[in-house]
Amino acid sequence: MENYFSSDFRLGVLGGGQLGRMLLTETQKYDIFTVILDGDQHAPCAEICNEFHQGSLMDYQTVYDFGKTVDVLTIEIEHVNIDALKKLEEEGLKIYPQPNVLEIIQHKGRQKDFFRNHNIPTADYTRHASAKQLGDMTEFPFVWKSAQFGYDGTGVKVIRSAEDLQGLPDVDSITEDMIPFKNELAVIVARNEKGEIKTYPVVEMEFHPTANQVEYVLCPARIDNAVAEKARDIALHVSDALGIVGLLAVEMFQTKDDEILVNEVAPRTHNSGHYSIEASYTSQFEQHLRSILNMPLGNTDNKVAGIMVNLVGEEGYSGDVVYEGMDDILHISGVTPHIYGKKHTRPFRKMGHVTIVNQDLDEARRVAEMVKKTIRVVAK
Amino acid sequence: MENYFSSDFRLGVLGGGQLGRMLLTETQKYDIFTVILDGDQHAPCAEICNEFHQGSLMDYQTVYDFGKTVDVLTIEIEHVNIDALKKLEEEGLKIYPQPNVLEIIQHKGRQKDFFRNHNIPTADYTRHASAKQLGDMTEFPFVWKSAQFGYDGTGVKVIRSAEDLQGLPDVDSITEDMIPFKNELAVIVARNEKGEIKTYPVVEMEFHPTANQVEYVLCPARIDNAVAEKARDIALHVSDALGIVGLLAVEMFQTKDDEILVNEVAPRTHNSGHYSIEASYTSQFEQHLRSILNMPLGNTDNKVAGIMVNLVGEEGYSGDVVYEGMDDILHISGVTPHIYGKKHTRPFRKMGHVTIVNQDLDEARRVAEMVKKTIRVVAK
Repeated sequence: MENYFSSDFRLGVLGGGQLGRMLLTETQKYDIFTVILDGDQHAPCAEICNEFHQGSLMDYQTVYDFGKTVDVLTIEIEHVNIDALKKLEEEGLKIYPQPNVLEIIQHKGRQKDFFRNHNIPTADYTRHASAKQLGDMTEFPFVWKSAQFGYDGTGVKVIRSAEDLQGLPDVDSITEDMIPFKNELAVIVARNEKGEIKTYPVVEMEFHPTANQVEYVLCPARIDNAVAEKARDIALHVSDALGIVGLLAVEMFQTKDDEILVNEVAPRTHNSGHYSIEASYTSQFEQHLRSILNMPLGNTDNKVAGIMVNLVGEEGYSGDVVYEGMDDILHISGVTPHIYGKKHTRPFRKMGHVTIVNQDLDEARRVAEMVKKTIRVVAK
Repeated sequence: MENYFSSDFRLGVLGGGQLGRMLLTETQKYDIFTVILDGDQHAPCAEICNEFHQGSLMDYQTVYDFGKTVDVLTIEIEHVNIDALKKLEEEGLKIYPQPNVLEIIQHKGRQKDFFRNHNIPTADYTRHASAKQLGDMTEFPFVWKSAQFGYDGTGVKVIRSAEDLQGLPDVDSITEDMIPFKNELAVIVARNEKGEIKTYPVVEMEFHPTANQVEYVLCPARIDNAVAEKARDIALHVSDALGIVGLLAVEMFQTKDDEILVNEVAPRTHNSGHYSIEASYTSQFEQHLRSILNMPLGNTDNKVAGIMVNLVGEEGYSGDVVYEGMDDILHISGVTPHIYGKKHTRPFRKMGHVTIVNQDLDEARRVAEMVKKTIRVVAK
């Protein structure tokens, strides 16, 4: 293994948001010098990384020049300039996840084709090069997804009638069958250069009963072992088919018939793995670092059960953020807030998350509900 | 509670070493703007805090001026200019731990007098204003301690004969009875401004059978409940008598007769609490932050058993540090290295630590021994 610790080694990260910030906790723990590129000079990582570069992640020259300053390059967001990465890879730079994997995943059409070509179970879909082609769709409902740049539910719409097609942007897109699912599950797979592989336990996204919004991520998922095993096997299959080095988060539907269909994947640390910071032997951020640097992978088991609640900006508030109710939630045992370092809130912006851990998942679930009711992300 | 999170609030820390660095993990998690003063421009905190000031912690004007730039001031080392702190406190700055507590603790003579005056059990001792006075000591052996600036065993010597007195520095000192102890224990107590108090479980320092050097810190200590309860009660009594706000680490001897004698105390996060990062519901660093900012205190219980091994520079090596055996220890489940960010090693310098966690303390102890045998801190 290379000498990464307190050495001249330089790790580069494309993207300086909250995922980068939580990765920095680990690079600081290992004292690995970390250089970050982000378009926003006030990005969550800007002040606390070893070296910060401001510039566009989609600009060829910016990404190429940045890559030339580091020894290994990784990402915390998949929307980056792939041509620059391919050139850097050709020139010998280690880039994990690999550019060809990013290229597949950053485009939902290519991602779905990849699933189909590798017998990875997924909902039926059609690709559309432009909005005009959507006029051919006559059976409703279905799900429309922008092929690129969708993030946290943006670029996704349920289409229930021909009227709903109006106003969709004229972009490359896919449409998918709506899956009536019992559960939405996710599995994170880690794989290093040597080919060592570990999967985290299956997590469950619990939705608000009416608002159709994920409220809680629970680990372990409250599903039976056979389903959990199937989900882990499928996630492993996806990671293996991609040959990815690094973390892969696989989001899946558990259908009414206990079929598992892959919804989409992300080639990085993921919101569904944030619970791992407090609950797991090895947090997903440490695991990402271990996998891209070809270190041995850590134990993915839980020490205790974990639940994550996202902190998103409340509707109707924009401006300098204030977290209301923090005092009340800090009174409760096993509650840890993570504040991402964004000074300004706006409706639905991801501002932080709260992890709740407990020996007993049901007790953690009760506490999570209390936390969710108590804390508010508003503006001054 | 004040609005600390992503706000204009500024936390000041005197000292930018490893304790400050591990505190930064927590201030980053809560997005609390943190300003650090240290004499060394390459201090472990320098690059990763929000704002770094270089200057002497013992210089009145430097400490005073620094204090004027922050809203709450804390320390990670007790050897700081007390007069400046007293002046700042008079002028209304919140300083935790309080200057009067630091003043008692930073001087071993005053510390021992404090124990005696508050009926805190401790070994018998004599104060000596100069080396000349030590000539009066005719009964051997005893322990000599420099009253000030001792750290991690420096400034401490066992005196077995009149010859051993030669070469001691001519400084203010104390001499103490040697205590034939069964165990060396420690308890960390947290106390916030509101007076809420929590104690961590008792930890045990396990010594090398011949080298008289702490090899492992184990939590929980392998002692019976009655002794543990007595140790926690005494630690609480010390914290209460001092009226300290913040963390207090109380090091104690368990004598052959299961008496508990306080050895010394530290008004801050402590080496004996490092295990808590991985093993506890609330790490000592988060707890320190909670206590000095008058937040509710977190749960001090363990999720799993924890053992800590210090990584100190090996004898015979000075220069650019290299950590040998990291790959081997990372293969083992539940092993987490912490590298403090010091580029240069020298004999016995504290360079990092490794935490080993496991559901089973005995298994953790076996792993800790393997870790200790495997990892080496050497130079290029």
